[in-house]
Amino acid sequence: MRILLVGSGGVGDAFARIAVRRPFFEQLVVADYDLARAERTVAAVDDPRVLAAQVDASSAQSVTDLARAHQVTHVMNAVDPRFVMPVFEGAFAAGADYLDMAMSLSQPHPEHPHRQTGVMLGDEQFAVATDWEAAGRLALVGMGVEPGLSDVFARYACDHLFSQVDELGTRDGSNLTVDGYEFAPSFSIWTTIEECLNPPVVWEADRGWFTTAPFSEPEVFDFPDGIGPVECVNVEHEEVLLMPRWLDAKRVTFKYGLGEEFIDVLRTLHKLGLDSTEPVRVGGVQVSPRDVVAACLPDPAGLGDRMHGKTCAGLWVTGTGTDGQPREVYLYHVVDNDWSMQEYGAQCVVWQTAVNPVVALELLATGAWSGSGVLGPEAFDAVPFLDLLRDGYGSPWGLREQTPGPAS
Amino acid sequence: MRILLVGSGGVGDAFARIAVRRPFFEQLVVADYDLARAERTVAAVDDPRVLAAQVDASSAQSVTDLARAHQVTHVMNAVDPRFVMPVFEGAFAAGADYLDMAMSLSQPHPEHPHRQTGVMLGDEQFAVATDWEAAGRLALVGMGVEPGLSDVFARYACDHLFSQVDELGTRDGSNLTVDGYEFAPSFSIWTTIEECLNPPVVWEADRGWFTTAPFSEPEVFDFPDGIGPVECVNVEHEEVLLMPRWLDAKRVTFKYGLGEEFIDVLRTLHKLGLDSTEPVRVGGVQVSPRDVVAACLPDPAGLGDRMHGKTCAGLWVTGTGTDGQPREVYLYHVVDNDWSMQEYGAQCVVWQTAVNPVVALELLATGAWSGSGVLGPEAFDAVPFLDLLRDGYGSPWGLREQTPGPAS
Repeated sequence: MRILLVGSGGVGDAFARIAVRRPFFEQLVVADYDLARAERTVAAVDDPRVLAAQVDASSAQSVTDLARAHQVTHVMNAVDPRFVMPVFEGAFAAGADYLDMAMSLSQPHPEHPHRQTGVMLGDEQFAVATDWEAAGRLALVGMGVEPGLSDVFARYACDHLFSQVDELGTRDGSNLTVDGYEFAPSFSIWTTIEECLNPPVVWEADRGWFTTAPFSEPEVFDFPDGIGPVECVNVEHEEVLLMPRWLDAKRVTFKYGLGEEFIDVLRTLHKLGLDSTEPVRVGGVQVSPRDVVAACLPDPAGLGDRMHGKTCAGLWVTGTGTDGQPREVYLYHVVDNDWSMQEYGAQCVVWQTAVNPVVALELLATGAWSGSGVLGPEAFDAVPFLDLLRDGYGSPWGLREQTPGPAS
Repeated sequence: MRILLVGSGGVGDAFARIAVRRPFFEQLVVADYDLARAERTVAAVDDPRVLAAQVDASSAQSVTDLARAHQVTHVMNAVDPRFVMPVFEGAFAAGADYLDMAMSLSQPHPEHPHRQTGVMLGDEQFAVATDWEAAGRLALVGMGVEPGLSDVFARYACDHLFSQVDELGTRDGSNLTVDGYEFAPSFSIWTTIEECLNPPVVWEADRGWFTTAPFSEPEVFDFPDGIGPVECVNVEHEEVLLMPRWLDAKRVTFKYGLGEEFIDVLRTLHKLGLDSTEPVRVGGVQVSPRDVVAACLPDPAGLGDRMHGKTCAGLWVTGTGTDGQPREVYLYHVVDNDWSMQEYGAQCVVWQTAVNPVVALELLATGAWSGSGVLGPEAFDAVPFLDLLRDGYGSPWGLREQTPGPAS
């Protein structure tokens, strides 16, 4: 396996640090728009299989050229989701397989953005699924932690824990704090704005996909391992678009434990138009306000030393157990920042995102997973993934049985 | 009188619209960095005394050259306060008198920003006061509505209403709304951020000037003419620096009726570093985050058609009346947006700011006011100003007697 990693920001850098501990690949080309950043990652991992390159992720041709030059078998996309399509198309043109951790972007419904879907997450990618299938090539989409591990959990729950599923509800929360900053998101603010200010999408068996207003259906979810209760709200996320394509459930949701302060910041950015990606003229230059917001905040990848706490990704599932009784479980994966910093020099949120595509690539390298077309993680057997994550990468997952609440 | 108006944004444009109704000047050169903007103002006023020019307000030389070319007697500064010093210096070098509506900027105290003053508003201008005096030239500083009319009220109160003043407290509030915008400040957001996020300054006779944390000492002030109660907080403002130089009072304060939503927006901008004027690198360009915030919001000068309500500027004075009894008054000036739009095509906040320097220039032209050095409005007799504002410009002011509260 010869991998081209496009993007060596926080997640890309952690991807390289995790992958080099494993023997499953022959070459890893770490490419970034900023060559110096790629070189920093290469220097940090110090592995003869890894080399640095420059790439323009906004250009499919640039991705294709680089993939061909290094006879790449798999293109690993680790850049902002606005570059999904050029990297996805560049990989296909180079005859490589492809993985990403976020899917092509959505466009709200022009008239009823808070009720009906417009262009949905991943629509552009699924539109060409038959081309990938015909070419015998695999695009494994949404293969980070959320989407990614959450989708693996969903497949596991459907195969092994439930005879019938009412809700597949991804629930994400943390108790992270960052010393020395009044406000410092632990993940890309660009992506967080995109996720949180777009109309959230929900899937119901009898309605299909539909949208709501941002921050809808607030609920307090009690996260495990000492994190405790966090206020969660509906957020647009790939799981809701992926799970119903392969799994049976009555309802699929995604709720993010944003907390009150973060919601207030996002609402204010929106109110002032600072969430916009449309360039505005400032003096003699044109800039996207959202890029300026990102530039004003510290790089989340560099905050690991000042962070404390744990982050939890997981899937809350309700329905009927294999024994015919009502069942409710939370399948989850917690990473402690102290551990990921000490063990990998990566902060917990980016480490947790990056480990999952490494596991998936190892399963593809060994043949434990195989397929063609545009597929989500739930299209593959969950058991080898969860076993390898725990045994090969030292990162266990948990299952919490909960008392089923009253039927909604 | 030959006037060079530097800046034809909201206030500059309104200044020209107001001035052309009066005969006191021979020429008005409307200058802007953007010549087209100056030309729009000139076209709107349609007066042979008025012509357009291009100027770079960040360059004293540019101001001097233009002032000399038109044999200007008075330079009227109507640009953002960051350009006060070059315009002020450019006027002096050209041998012209000078007026502004905001003073040179402050710098917080490096160690105790919320207790001690650093560089104060106007310090740079007062530092060269003897040069202006020696040259027999006048710099009339802070001659808008606040500072400006508020300072005229203070002089009036000291001369005619009180034998001893406890507090001179400028209080500013409105009930303005803007149709079609979730958030649309009615005044320059650049200046509002500068005013509101700098540590507020307070003057007390036995302590001198000192600072507090932003948004300190919230109080609900009941504004007249149907505006009603608005939450006001301490804000850094020129009145506090000007009034104690010429008038006797135990305490001088400025409180702005920001309201809860606006305070929340300003706090969030600060938390994210978006209030900063220090350029950040975004892609290949450098921009100041605060300029980007301003670029994302609608130009307040263009909102007049969508605005409703009234704005009130005024001075709350407590102390001992001329009869020896405790007295408390609010001297105020209210402008209704419907009136200023219909009468002048200018929204009420910029109209209210712009009318005061026009009145002052007319008083200087007629000789009713004269002086040299760097002087605030309270250095001049208030009566001719208040009479001319009412009788010449059709804009009355009010006096509300209040029941004195318990001594603080």
